[in-house]
Amino acid sequence: MMDEFDFIRSIQPKYYRQSSVIKGIGDDAAIIRSLNQDIITTVDTMVESIHFTTQTMEPFHVGYRALAANISDIVAMGGKPTSFLVSIVVPKNWEKEQLREIYQGIDQLAQKFQMDVIGGDTVTGQQLTISITVFGSVNKHQVRYRSHAQAGDVVFVTGTIGDAACGLDLLLHEDQDTQQNYEYFINRHRMPLPRVNFIQATGNIKRMALNDISDGISNEANEIAEASHVALRINEKAIPYHIGITDFPKEKQQQWLLSGGEDFELLGTVSPNEWEKLVSIAEKTNTKITKIGEVFHHDRYNGSVLINNGSSSVILDKSGYTHLRGDNNE
Amino acid sequence: MMDEFDFIRSIQPKYYRQSSVIKGIGDDAAIIRSLNQDIITTVDTMVESIHFTTQTMEPFHVGYRALAANISDIVAMGGKPTSFLVSIVVPKNWEKEQLREIYQGIDQLAQKFQMDVIGGDTVTGQQLTISITVFGSVNKHQVRYRSHAQAGDVVFVTGTIGDAACGLDLLLHEDQDTQQNYEYFINRHRMPLPRVNFIQATGNIKRMALNDISDGISNEANEIAEASHVALRINEKAIPYHIGITDFPKEKQQQWLLSGGEDFELLGTVSPNEWEKLVSIAEKTNTKITKIGEVFHHDRYNGSVLINNGSSSVILDKSGYTHLRGDNNE
Repeated sequence: MMDEFDFIRSIQPKYYRQSSVIKGIGDDAAIIRSLNQDIITTVDTMVESIHFTTQTMEPFHVGYRALAANISDIVAMGGKPTSFLVSIVVPKNWEKEQLREIYQGIDQLAQKFQMDVIGGDTVTGQQLTISITVFGSVNKHQVRYRSHAQAGDVVFVTGTIGDAACGLDLLLHEDQDTQQNYEYFINRHRMPLPRVNFIQATGNIKRMALNDISDGISNEANEIAEASHVALRINEKAIPYHIGITDFPKEKQQQWLLSGGEDFELLGTVSPNEWEKLVSIAEKTNTKITKIGEVFHHDRYNGSVLINNGSSSVILDKSGYTHLRGDNNE
Repeated sequence: MMDEFDFIRSIQPKYYRQSSVIKGIGDDAAIIRSLNQDIITTVDTMVESIHFTTQTMEPFHVGYRALAANISDIVAMGGKPTSFLVSIVVPKNWEKEQLREIYQGIDQLAQKFQMDVIGGDTVTGQQLTISITVFGSVNKHQVRYRSHAQAGDVVFVTGTIGDAACGLDLLLHEDQDTQQNYEYFINRHRMPLPRVNFIQATGNIKRMALNDISDGISNEANEIAEASHVALRINEKAIPYHIGITDFPKEKQQQWLLSGGEDFELLGTVSPNEWEKLVSIAEKTNTKITKIGEVFHHDRYNGSVLINNGSSSVILDKSGYTHLRGDNNE
């Protein structure tokens, strides 16, 4: 395996795309400057055989997806992704070439969004582990906390939901590669595209609550309900899906729609007065956007999510289970 | 094992010590604000059985040392450490209590320097791995790059050198626990204290080149020589050591002094005009500081380090090997 020094050197760019990068790779630490904007940061770690296997991802996808997950968190705060640090634990038997493929996956997304790698480290270990710390910038008035939902808001999602979960299912059951939409679904698992362009265009929307859908609609909607002390009502039939999903058993469909994460689509709430404006921004940025419910106040249900399947309305918990409105021992 | 959600919740502080933390744990990402200062950031990863074992460290030390290494990088840029993200890969058989001890180690240092944990994640894996991304702030005129050395500068180090390497040696050879300075040396390996207070007091030193000694004097001095396009001359006899080191074989002593890292002391250069001022700052902050050499210009040796052992002057390479000045195939 190549040593740490060589690898960090090998990925050191000749110039930085972002003017906020004052010092990148090459000293004890990196330096970033942000005079009028706040800096958003988060870390996300992927471990082989836990978050991916050689069956589900090539090294390229591991790198790509690790950065995509991080970018998605920046987007969910209303921010613009700018730079990142990469820490990789590499098994001893790995080849230089595999490490390079991981980095190529990272770099494909980094180029797309004009992001800079500003540091990192590479150490030896038993299990491939990739940990990315991402940075983004945001105007302080445009931060999108999950606590920003208000009664009356429209609840919306971007894109179609459950595609990545379907793709993972296809990858895990090898006999399914003749499935008509195989390539589409596995790409949604391996190479999800965070909604950077859409969110960058929403600067003049006054207020939104936003979560990226990393753990499924059920989880994200509950987090917004809890943080905002409101209740969300979701119309199950309104959740947008790719038509290919209907080839699968009903049970799987429902699970993917309610608990399937990692599409890195967004779930948000916005004032009904700004809904049309948001729809038009979505159109301009080629973003599918769908109203799936609304926010309301209710002493008993604040902090909870109700889901209506057309005939009855039940409580939807974080893990995607539903239960009757009377049985939760309030 | 406790799940990720519980652990992050459990370490979420009731308030943040730093006013720069706009949003800590509890949304998709953290937000930091730094109006007049630049932000310094770096990541450092420690893996069990590579960087530590149960023989050399308790969980408490693993946490403490992981943060110490990161803080030391902030200090080596001239900055003040402020906050951090923690990502931990935890083996399935680990207990909640062990995870908590790691965090207690982290928190002891965080409290000491009034730092905030602002996010992170905990995932399952085979090998305990802790990756910390640290943030610091620095006035743009007080950044201490390794490229800042100039001919004529005094070369200095803080503290005594080689203590942590000696401590690790003691921990790895179990029969040595009767050694007179056993506790001192193993503490220097397990719980090194980065030179935060000293560097915070050096704001009105105009120019310094600085590296923290994570890989040994040989490596750090060479990095400064390369980055600054100058030559460094080090007087081997001037390198400060703890008297207990002399109990060990000469060969080990020399290796620890030249290549022993992880004391997280500093190696730097400063103008001779500011040397007395720096000495007086060191006194005020209870910091041992020692002149060990000087910087010079030489067409042949720029980018290199020479070391003088009293009788002859030889080239000191990054790994601590010395060789005659004529034998490097120039």
